[in-house]
Amino acid sequence: MIDLYTWATPNGHKVHVMLEECALPYRVHPVHIGRGEQFAPEFLAISPNNRIPAIIDRGGPGGAPMALAESGAILIYLAEKTGRFLAPEGPSRHLALQWVMFQMSAVGPIFGQCYHFRTDAPEPVPYAIDRFTREARRLYGVLDKRLAEARYLAGEELSIADFATWPWAHGIAKQGHDPADYPNVIRWFEEIRARPAVRRGVKVLSESRRLEMNAAERDILFGDAGPRRPTA
Amino acid sequence: MIDLYTWATPNGHKVHVMLEECALPYRVHPVHIGRGEQFAPEFLAISPNNRIPAIIDRGGPGGAPMALAESGAILIYLAEKTGRFLAPEGPSRHLALQWVMFQMSAVGPIFGQCYHFRTDAPEPVPYAIDRFTREARRLYGVLDKRLAEARYLAGEELSIADFATWPWAHGIAKQGHDPADYPNVIRWFEEIRARPAVRRGVKVLSESRRLEMNAAERDILFGDAGPRRPTA
Repeated sequence: MIDLYTWATPNGHKVHVMLEECALPYRVHPVHIGRGEQFAPEFLAISPNNRIPAIIDRGGPGGAPMALAESGAILIYLAEKTGRFLAPEGPSRHLALQWVMFQMSAVGPIFGQCYHFRTDAPEPVPYAIDRFTREARRLYGVLDKRLAEARYLAGEELSIADFATWPWAHGIAKQGHDPADYPNVIRWFEEIRARPAVRRGVKVLSESRRLEMNAAERDILFGDAGPRRPTA
Repeated sequence: MIDLYTWATPNGHKVHVMLEECALPYRVHPVHIGRGEQFAPEFLAISPNNRIPAIIDRGGPGGAPMALAESGAILIYLAEKTGRFLAPEGPSRHLALQWVMFQMSAVGPIFGQCYHFRTDAPEPVPYAIDRFTREARRLYGVLDKRLAEARYLAGEELSIADFATWPWAHGIAKQGHDPADYPNVIRWFEEIRARPAVRRGVKVLSESRRLEMNAAERDILFGDAGPRRPTA
């Protein structure tokens, strides 16, 4: 049994989808990030950077419990535990890891800053909005080019690179881009979205996500004083 | 023989250090990022996100050449090729990968934005300077706490997690923080700095780095119009 500490965010959904695709038994422990539950000492003991998702695999290496944080590391752990979605060796293994790293180091951080500056920052910061929106557009271009030459990010086989990236490609239009500019991303996104395990994965905590955050929760989450900037 | 496409940056040095530590033969191909050489089609064929470092291992899997980009993926590839600095299984393997992901998703992107907004942005952006400086400080705190409880990031053994993070911890004071606040980071940094292979690794292209970038090169690198903001 895997104890899963998570919330309904793109990084959470990477692991929800992987667990469903691998048909691994898991137990969800919601970490309400708007309420600051990620700062609780018990959670910090599992996740030193107090970020969701994190897991404790009760049947870890040698049968001992294994605590692990960082969505990218959890994907590799689960892939190596099950032998699914990451070749044990050879070029496709390393290309999958290359695209996981591209997601971890570029897509996630840049799209995250985009959301912050476009929607959540308490004051408008035109320079940063422009910087991160342009960079996100460039990254969609990199993905589209790759998905024009290969069915999936690592090649012809679905891999953890797709599960890492897919939840972040959810809101192209909301992020200020035209989906028509990225036909290969859209083809890939829709194919993955149609998978039954993916549909189950994104339902994890989906009800909690729909609850509107209040102002105090937003302050905890973004560490900003002051009211939220209107987005209209 | 490994063909290494690189430049004297923190991401480059991760791989320079690993190659030296593993005593792997390699040939350096400088990619002058200030001159835009990372946009050349030949380089893009190896590195789809046009970022250094990238490699072509002429003796890759099955003896075929293997092209690979993303510093984090290259570290894992070299570790699995040599059996060095990453356990083949067990908790310490996954903790090492957790800390590699922490570097790739947090330390690298946040410190990178810090450098941009503190030094290179063509206009002062106080909100962003404050945001990224505060977040970098928090990340140093996470590292210091970890290095208070363990000799290295993954535990008692030096691993690719240390090689990934070490080149980014070079300029604590320059980044606006007080080194005295992070005694465990400093102890770890100095221990790694003293290793002969690390000393050789950071010498790769060190002469090129010392050349001052001119204004046109800075525009190419940062994609910003306008003059560089004075840093005095």
